[in-house]
Amino acid sequence: MPSPVDDFPTAGMIGGGQLARMTQQAAIALGVELRVLARDAAESAARVVSEPFLGDHDDATALRKFAAGVDVITFDHEHVPPALLQELIELGTPVRPSPEALIHAQDKITMRRELAAAGLPCPEWDFIPHGASDEQAIAVLAGFGDQVGWPIVMKTSRGGYDGRGVWVVDDLTQARDVLRDAQLAPNASWLLEEKVDFVRELAAQVARSPHGQAVAYPVVQTVQTDGMCTEVIAPAPNLAHDRAIEAQRIALEVAHVVGVTGMLAVELFDTGDRLLINELAMRPHNSGHWTIDGAITSQFENHLRAVLDLPLGSPAARDRYTVMVNVLGTGRGSMYAAYKHVLARDPRVKVHMYGKEPRAGRKLGHVCVGGDDLEQLLIRAHHAADYLAGVIDE
Amino acid sequence: MPSPVDDFPTAGMIGGGQLARMTQQAAIALGVELRVLARDAAESAARVVSEPFLGDHDDATALRKFAAGVDVITFDHEHVPPALLQELIELGTPVRPSPEALIHAQDKITMRRELAAAGLPCPEWDFIPHGASDEQAIAVLAGFGDQVGWPIVMKTSRGGYDGRGVWVVDDLTQARDVLRDAQLAPNASWLLEEKVDFVRELAAQVARSPHGQAVAYPVVQTVQTDGMCTEVIAPAPNLAHDRAIEAQRIALEVAHVVGVTGMLAVELFDTGDRLLINELAMRPHNSGHWTIDGAITSQFENHLRAVLDLPLGSPAARDRYTVMVNVLGTGRGSMYAAYKHVLARDPRVKVHMYGKEPRAGRKLGHVCVGGDDLEQLLIRAHHAADYLAGVIDE
Repeated sequence: MPSPVDDFPTAGMIGGGQLARMTQQAAIALGVELRVLARDAAESAARVVSEPFLGDHDDATALRKFAAGVDVITFDHEHVPPALLQELIELGTPVRPSPEALIHAQDKITMRRELAAAGLPCPEWDFIPHGASDEQAIAVLAGFGDQVGWPIVMKTSRGGYDGRGVWVVDDLTQARDVLRDAQLAPNASWLLEEKVDFVRELAAQVARSPHGQAVAYPVVQTVQTDGMCTEVIAPAPNLAHDRAIEAQRIALEVAHVVGVTGMLAVELFDTGDRLLINELAMRPHNSGHWTIDGAITSQFENHLRAVLDLPLGSPAARDRYTVMVNVLGTGRGSMYAAYKHVLARDPRVKVHMYGKEPRAGRKLGHVCVGGDDLEQLLIRAHHAADYLAGVIDE
Repeated sequence: MPSPVDDFPTAGMIGGGQLARMTQQAAIALGVELRVLARDAAESAARVVSEPFLGDHDDATALRKFAAGVDVITFDHEHVPPALLQELIELGTPVRPSPEALIHAQDKITMRRELAAAGLPCPEWDFIPHGASDEQAIAVLAGFGDQVGWPIVMKTSRGGYDGRGVWVVDDLTQARDVLRDAQLAPNASWLLEEKVDFVRELAAQVARSPHGQAVAYPVVQTVQTDGMCTEVIAPAPNLAHDRAIEAQRIALEVAHVVGVTGMLAVELFDTGDRLLINELAMRPHNSGHWTIDGAITSQFENHLRAVLDLPLGSPAARDRYTVMVNVLGTGRGSMYAAYKHVLARDPRVKVHMYGKEPRAGRKLGHVCVGGDDLEQLLIRAHHAADYLAGVIDE
């Protein structure tokens, strides 16, 4: 391993996906060494760092070895078992966010309980206790459905992401089918939520450092397709100033209540009348990819700054509007041929490819474009993303 | 080596310095695999790429092996012998810029001859032929000094950089001392130039692709300290529109005459009345570091796009002014302590560290800040750079 330069630190990120890949861009500028724990050398981030450490994120031995070579442990996903993280802390490596914070992104029942206790605005919710009998489960479902009105939302408390582990059920019969057919992760249970009648979804991102410095990014509007974030407009258009401040305040309060270090994304339902907390992510998040091109300091840079307890950078937007659209794999056509077309067609579109094998439904990259005319920005960004994905041929 | 993704190409960069390091940031977004030929694993770029290839840039065997694994060869410096590059081309790997173009950055006499022949504006110049006797050399010096007036500038035609290999001599006695004491590189000779009475220095950067597409960046003002570029203002303040267009036209014409592929930087003297070409660089250049934070497309991204024959990105500036200041090593103080101070003091300053051992006089990083108030931007950027270098303690 290259010797450390002066006294600059080394950050270790668990997970080799595109979030770690984009964190490397920030690490290069900061002069911080980024090490990545990846499952194999072909993963998105493993391709772009010096000496990726190959291993599983739930292998205690691999984690111990990886942690021994870095100054802080952080994540590009939330799947590492808390007990293993606790062991790394006891062996002397700080883990940021801490396992105590991370549990709120790992277990949605814990998240709802803590946020509701702190008076933060959540949808109506209930849960089916772990190990409940079928009769007990049905009773909770029936009671909750009667209380908030059908349809309701059923979520596995653990293991879901990108829309997986979420069902909308119209009645008790459908709920019973989900209970019967779904595979619950170990220690998982069922979170029940009212189906919120929202006019749009928003996301509020903050970075928070160990000694409590925090910065709030402009609040963005997100579009989810099949549970995946696919379009982001920063800042959210037609959002009243007071409502934007409220969203930022909610995110800062969540960060404080939960004790996050690093980036926190709070996904919000905007019902027109009020904001309700949907989900949390404690890492750089798809809703913040626009910050690479559109903010003074990217979410990846501020995540690194935060987990290294460095002063945070300005989260201010650089353009009136920035639009980000994800490139989702369709399995059709040559990506590289489409890519050349996209670069030629719009020299101001920023294309970000993740170095992943194209497979249908996979996040393969994103595009970003900034300027004043939101309608045109949306057209340009969607054209570029659709073309890259092979959805259109011109 | 990880398998290639879809049909995206791999670029091989010879040289492991900060230019290759910053090129990796662009490669990550483009989804292009960057491989680096570095002398050792602790070099600036070798720390941030997957599997750096260790070897010397003048070792034919190492070059052949390196070239066999990439789709195109390019450079972060201009020191590779043309004959070795020619061999790589014959073995099937494109080299961009080509050895025929690169010679104009490697040999300053060739550069002057070709540019002057094309009618491009150069200072008055002459040269001492390779292998000239002392008497012949003195005769050329005396004749040239009488013609353009003393002092004159003596440059070694090859091997100089960052102000090395350049002398200003007041008279024939001093010129004789330089001739006697200087170590000439093999095949090098002496270029003589009038000492241009300039009011400031400018740089014009263009990117040019193999099939001839070219884009011109805003013309910048540069400040050289001891022959090293230390401050850049983009765009150059108080530069008449016609003069800016003239500088861009010169750079585009140089790119065409010389047949550059990739980035070209043309350093210019602004005498107040006219522009004269000083030096050329055929790679990303210190005068373009501002483009990472200040332009739609960085010079590093456009260099990769150009050498891969991809459509070029917009070179437009993002702010009214962007100021870049280099961080030069002084060997004093802890860089990391100073760095924390700089990040805390100005959350909008972008700090770029090169991951190099701090040594006096070495380029260790740069800082960049954009906005409207040029005077304040200069103060902020210089404060940050000076503080990082250990020149001031607050």
